[in-house]
Amino acid sequence: MTTWPDTRLLDLLQIEHPIIQAPMAGSATPALAAAASNAGALGSLGCAMMDTGAVRGAVGELRDRSNRAFNLNFFCHAPPGHDPARDARAAELLAPFYRELGLGEMPAALATNFPFGEEMLELLLELRPQVASFHFGLPDEALVRPLKDAGVVILSSATTPGEARRLEAMGVDAIIAQGFEAGGHRGHFAAPYESTWIGTLALVPQVVDAVRVPVIAAGGIADGRGIAAALAAASGEDTAMTRAFSGRPARGIRNRYLDAMAPHEETLPDFPLMNTLAGPLRKACAARGSGDFIALWAGQAVGLNRTLPAAELVETLVAETRARLAAVAG
Amino acid sequence: MTTWPDTRLLDLLQIEHPIIQAPMAGSATPALAAAASNAGALGSLGCAMMDTGAVRGAVGELRDRSNRAFNLNFFCHAPPGHDPARDARAAELLAPFYRELGLGEMPAALATNFPFGEEMLELLLELRPQVASFHFGLPDEALVRPLKDAGVVILSSATTPGEARRLEAMGVDAIIAQGFEAGGHRGHFAAPYESTWIGTLALVPQVVDAVRVPVIAAGGIADGRGIAAALAAASGEDTAMTRAFSGRPARGIRNRYLDAMAPHEETLPDFPLMNTLAGPLRKACAARGSGDFIALWAGQAVGLNRTLPAAELVETLVAETRARLAAVAG
Repeated sequence: MTTWPDTRLLDLLQIEHPIIQAPMAGSATPALAAAASNAGALGSLGCAMMDTGAVRGAVGELRDRSNRAFNLNFFCHAPPGHDPARDARAAELLAPFYRELGLGEMPAALATNFPFGEEMLELLLELRPQVASFHFGLPDEALVRPLKDAGVVILSSATTPGEARRLEAMGVDAIIAQGFEAGGHRGHFAAPYESTWIGTLALVPQVVDAVRVPVIAAGGIADGRGIAAALAAASGEDTAMTRAFSGRPARGIRNRYLDAMAPHEETLPDFPLMNTLAGPLRKACAARGSGDFIALWAGQAVGLNRTLPAAELVETLVAETRARLAAVAG
Repeated sequence: MTTWPDTRLLDLLQIEHPIIQAPMAGSATPALAAAASNAGALGSLGCAMMDTGAVRGAVGELRDRSNRAFNLNFFCHAPPGHDPARDARAAELLAPFYRELGLGEMPAALATNFPFGEEMLELLLELRPQVASFHFGLPDEALVRPLKDAGVVILSSATTPGEARRLEAMGVDAIIAQGFEAGGHRGHFAAPYESTWIGTLALVPQVVDAVRVPVIAAGGIADGRGIAAALAAASGEDTAMTRAFSGRPARGIRNRYLDAMAPHEETLPDFPLMNTLAGPLRKACAARGSGDFIALWAGQAVGLNRTLPAAELVETLVAETRARLAAVAG
């Protein structure tokens, strides 16, 4: 193989290999980012806990070590709501640990990570990194537009196909599809947290189908097998785990019964006793053509399902797989 | 491509394509299984809710339609414990739905799915399916050994690398690596439920590394991209989601603090306020070389991590990916 199957991302990010070092705020160093960039990947610096002075210093250090493209990553969360009762309850929970470790008085609960703002924008327009990436959505358009106008490539993370469509509409140049396997903070910003627990293998093809911009897979990838898999995998109904039908956890399409029983999962009878109680509800709904109380077992790739006779589906799957393997092998 | 990259499973199951139709107890029919088998895949019948008479009838119907290999699937759960308080609480929760649907008296909570037993074993020794698969572990050796001696290929599902090793030691011929994305019942039988939420992309390579028998990927696969990815992806520390460090959900390696705070997730202050409270604990532990209170952010593939300098790691990943893509393209 002389090149990669798809070079859109390589051209966009000005890199040699389709590999991005994770920004890892608090852990990644300018030396690490420079080493990754010099090796042909995209080095990244997690700037979520840095002020503008620290970012300026780190970028200087990075540029002393590499003249290749790199990525600066920022958080863009809404400022937190303060709830004195929650603060007090957390302080109560942590007090025994503070005592055990001989720590003094507990600090007040304050905002330590600062969302991307005007001052940081000014600095970036001066420093001109090739790539800026955001976690927890995107900042206001007034903060993103000047970066795009200055030629900075914009990335952000999606945890559902819906979030990916929103990011594309907001103008990102490529989308990170962050699977449930990924380490560190979930990047969800629009979908409810529990509906964003989609594995990388189910998420990547659905995001690829949902948007036109290049898609970067994240989560569960640690060696060449994972990268090859992500390249090979490169549309969605909402599923969830439930014990409410049988007593054992099973994944199915969310419906009225599954949602209504969700808060009571822990108190239900053992498998398969629960079947007896839920059975009449299932049968009654089936008779009425309603899906409200039916166990609609389905996996997270249900959005990719097709209605085909078995033989035709097997034939299609085999042909698709062979075509896909041939395409990515180049 | 004239053949598939790895033919071990094809030889074992006597099939043409590495695709298995899911057994789907209650939904799959003999006609569907026969159609899948006739198309070169492995057709399956979910027998978890059938008695021996029904299985005999269904297999007869299947054999009228196909002379190819097929798979009979059984559950092998422990009999449920009866807890009158849970039964009563479930009845209370379901009562409004029964009223709404005009259903009469609620039945008592009884076991409807029967675990694989002696009588079913006798029937299988007579019917001799090519493949028998089990969910929720494996039955006692006395129920499995005669099947193996009769030449029936035995499959079961693992949701963690540890469960895969246990199944291999118990003599299964191939292991289904059931990722978190998969529809229907989770097949976990040894690991605690919450530690089995591993995405297919992270699970498959770790199971492949953990056992010698062939591994079948399940979960998140719906088209040729998914199959190609699973073929390309063909070691594990325990991670979990937590809000206890920053206030937003993030995935890290389980440690004392993450486990201690797990029951209180819902009551913690917003991101990033929680950082302030947890910060002194993190710093104190780092100073002592303890991991008890540190945020060890890591993804589900952490077991595959290697300690290499950045440049060497990028080079290794690129070489591995290219080799893997070339190998699966045949």
